[in-house]
Amino acid sequence: MAASVTVENLNPKVLKCEYAVRGEIVIHAQLLQQQLQTQPGSLPFDEILYCNIGNPQSLGQKPVTFFREVLALCDHPCLLDKEETKSLFRSSPNYFNVPLKHENLCISDGSSLCSADAISRAKQILASIPGRATGAYSHSQGIKGLRDAIAAGITSRDGFPANADDIFLTDGASPGVHMMMQLLIRNEKDGILCPIPQYPLYSASITLHGGALVPYYLNESTGWGLEISDLKKQLEDAQSKGIDVRALVVINPGNPTGQVLAEANQYDIVKFCKNEGLVLLADEVYQENIYVDNKKFNSFKKIVRSMGLGEDDLPLVSFQSVSKGYHGECGKRGGYMEITGFSAPVREQIYKIASVNLCSNVTGQILASLVMNPPKAGDESYASYKAEKDGILESLARRAKALEDAFNNLEGFTCNKTEGAMYLFPQIHLPQKAIEAAKAAKKAPDAFYALRLLESTGIVVVPGSGFGQVPGTWHIRCTILPQEDKIPAVITRFKAFHEAFMAEYRD
Amino acid sequence: MAASVTVENLNPKVLKCEYAVRGEIVIHAQLLQQQLQTQPGSLPFDEILYCNIGNPQSLGQKPVTFFREVLALCDHPCLLDKEETKSLFRSSPNYFNVPLKHENLCISDGSSLCSADAISRAKQILASIPGRATGAYSHSQGIKGLRDAIAAGITSRDGFPANADDIFLTDGASPGVHMMMQLLIRNEKDGILCPIPQYPLYSASITLHGGALVPYYLNESTGWGLEISDLKKQLEDAQSKGIDVRALVVINPGNPTGQVLAEANQYDIVKFCKNEGLVLLADEVYQENIYVDNKKFNSFKKIVRSMGLGEDDLPLVSFQSVSKGYHGECGKRGGYMEITGFSAPVREQIYKIASVNLCSNVTGQILASLVMNPPKAGDESYASYKAEKDGILESLARRAKALEDAFNNLEGFTCNKTEGAMYLFPQIHLPQKAIEAAKAAKKAPDAFYALRLLESTGIVVVPGSGFGQVPGTWHIRCTILPQEDKIPAVITRFKAFHEAFMAEYRD
Repeated sequence: MAASVTVENLNPKVLKCEYAVRGEIVIHAQLLQQQLQTQPGSLPFDEILYCNIGNPQSLGQKPVTFFREVLALCDHPCLLDKEETKSLFRSSPNYFNVPLKHENLCISDGSSLCSADAISRAKQILASIPGRATGAYSHSQGIKGLRDAIAAGITSRDGFPANADDIFLTDGASPGVHMMMQLLIRNEKDGILCPIPQYPLYSASITLHGGALVPYYLNESTGWGLEISDLKKQLEDAQSKGIDVRALVVINPGNPTGQVLAEANQYDIVKFCKNEGLVLLADEVYQENIYVDNKKFNSFKKIVRSMGLGEDDLPLVSFQSVSKGYHGECGKRGGYMEITGFSAPVREQIYKIASVNLCSNVTGQILASLVMNPPKAGDESYASYKAEKDGILESLARRAKALEDAFNNLEGFTCNKTEGAMYLFPQIHLPQKAIEAAKAAKKAPDAFYALRLLESTGIVVVPGSGFGQVPGTWHIRCTILPQEDKIPAVITRFKAFHEAFMAEYRD
Repeated sequence: MAASVTVENLNPKVLKCEYAVRGEIVIHAQLLQQQLQTQPGSLPFDEILYCNIGNPQSLGQKPVTFFREVLALCDHPCLLDKEETKSLFRSSPNYFNVPLKHENLCISDGSSLCSADAISRAKQILASIPGRATGAYSHSQGIKGLRDAIAAGITSRDGFPANADDIFLTDGASPGVHMMMQLLIRNEKDGILCPIPQYPLYSASITLHGGALVPYYLNESTGWGLEISDLKKQLEDAQSKGIDVRALVVINPGNPTGQVLAEANQYDIVKFCKNEGLVLLADEVYQENIYVDNKKFNSFKKIVRSMGLGEDDLPLVSFQSVSKGYHGECGKRGGYMEITGFSAPVREQIYKIASVNLCSNVTGQILASLVMNPPKAGDESYASYKAEKDGILESLARRAKALEDAFNNLEGFTCNKTEGAMYLFPQIHLPQKAIEAAKAAKKAPDAFYALRLLESTGIVVVPGSGFGQVPGTWHIRCTILPQEDKIPAVITRFKAFHEAFMAEYRD
């Protein structure tokens, strides 16, 4: 009987797991979207605006041309074989009116399919794959030549050497996180220190692997500062309960909180991990997304090496993804983890887990190598590449500022600056009457607010309760990703909703 | 201290997990390959021949042109925008000298980049993706339009309706298998019936999720027949030990064993699952790989529906992959699972697990939709597509037969026919002296044989012990994938090695 499988007899870890970024609010939004299609005009808005997830291209951001040229050539390498004799055109729209020069692959009117550097990069990548076989399983850590390229990119970023053998290419950053949790968590007495608020991949993964999430609180009043004193306190508290704390997760730039760690703070975090024997799991997927002049991204690898610490001193994992940055190639599912400071036998176990899934997707692998080695000054694509990149990042900075200002102008909202990443995480001081209405509706107050926002405006945000927050405070996470020309309308809709909400529930 | 993480304090499930397809022998082969590069001539062979894994393109199989044309167009959709005004060339080598007709996208000499149906297919796919954003995270089950196409492909294959809501697109088949194990296994008392020999993804996944593998033995003497009496016996045996058996894994066509189930046998398997309240996990990734005229592939979905059973009768999961078939697009990591017979609340849990990893890679998603809906008679690509497909499958059938015959001619080898899939799994009756030499070397006898084979010939096979086998019997798994013109040399090398091995160890 099909009734043999019921919710009651499923793995309780699965039942317990939560992932709010695609949770109840989003499922409701998808239903409303269907309603808009089948019954246009039946809702007080014309479209659903997904501000729940860092998914830039879903909101109209265009892919970076150079990256896509290389991918198309690698997908269908036959294109390259005709270089000498045939001609092609560069069809990418020249978004920024940068003069393009094309020496190769032009048809009679002089327009070209691909830049010369895209062609040479594709050739270089294909040459590094035995038999140019982009359709073959690769080494379980990823294609060696691509890992070499990524290691070179890390070396150039940090000024300290990186090694291809330390790179594990993954389908986005998430599988790497799961792999490390799987490796470290033996049972419910193994704990992982995680920031609160946190990106719920961490809580979900820890729950699925049956471990304990040991929370440390980012200080909202100091711009989501990470305080070593709180780390210590939470560690000791967990240890006193018999928890064996194995690792510390740091998300820098922060998700959902948008702060960028100061260098001195990073030194202290490294010392803390070293002293306490913790693995440092550094989520650095937003390393390109920094919007303020007074902060810059430092990888933990660079910090660790700057302190003179080497392989024997600290187990460190850095996660990177092609989904974020200025490129936002979420659908390609590329990423990597760089692991250092683990013994050979432990690394063998990591390799074994990676090998069970054979390899990550090769398109994502290629893209990860491109993201870590974009065109350089002198390359034919450089001007257009730089214009695309700068255009996106500058626009994101303006959008972040506009939304931050708008939130801070709403009654009961306080919103820290988005220094980096893709999100605002404002606190909403909800009136008691709204909190009671939420209780009556059996919702968390911020979920109640987010649902009402969705139903009134079509704007999808994630309630703070999905990320964790200081008990009794309420937040929402809202991406900065709607296209810039839509931001004023988003603000107007949001403001009108909020004023009506407050008029209804003001104490 | 970095010593805080040691093999001793890792998750014991990880330590216990084994995956021989990329295990010790393969790691040794990679070292020998490096040696061949750095010290050419230092080994008694010139190249490593990877017969350990079903990875056709790594051994020279070419991708199917139509599929790659569509992928390139979807990766860089700007190519399509110029269709009316610009001209391109079809650069794919015309492997089979089939006359090609190109009405669109031709340059002056009449050659074209893409077939008209590749162009229209790419447009259709892009139109089904909001904003044509192949770089956006999709719905966690995959892009709805692609799932519709896959459901249509299944419907046309089976003659019974399929539903896009039942499709979960995955990065290859493996993540789907992990997802189901994660869902069903609560603890070490939950069991999964698996064939022995089995594809070690199953044993690895069950171990990682902490469950019990309940083995049932395929009968080598009847061509790896699946006997219901053995299923019953093993189920009862497990139950008597307090194991709650939750699911039955069937691999059809078989891996590593290559048999294709007879329809009557499939009916009995379905009845068994229904009577015993088991989930049927049907690994159907080799559904296109059938090499004998007297057998055909029937999906378990078709069998179940033919029996008049519906949604309420049997929970059934069918796994499919783009890695296998005639296309062998392993590196693209595309696949899906079709789940039927699960209640809405259970499906919500499956969706939740899928959503934690956001989505599978979109390139793989697109390819899965193509594989389930290849060109049809009347399409411009059809003739060349069919020539490529038939060429590959017919060649695989000839290679399977040649290797089977060769193995059966070796002293002490017995090899069943490869009716389907990509492997031969001959039994080797090893002399006692060889078994003792293996013991002395602390290897399983078949691993000892495989290692010696590798060191003498560069041919990589997987020892039967990696798949499970009747105790006291020894096998190897060898793919049928070396290119056809290499098969005679493979046979010669293998034969020479085996004769020398037997001369050394014959009792």
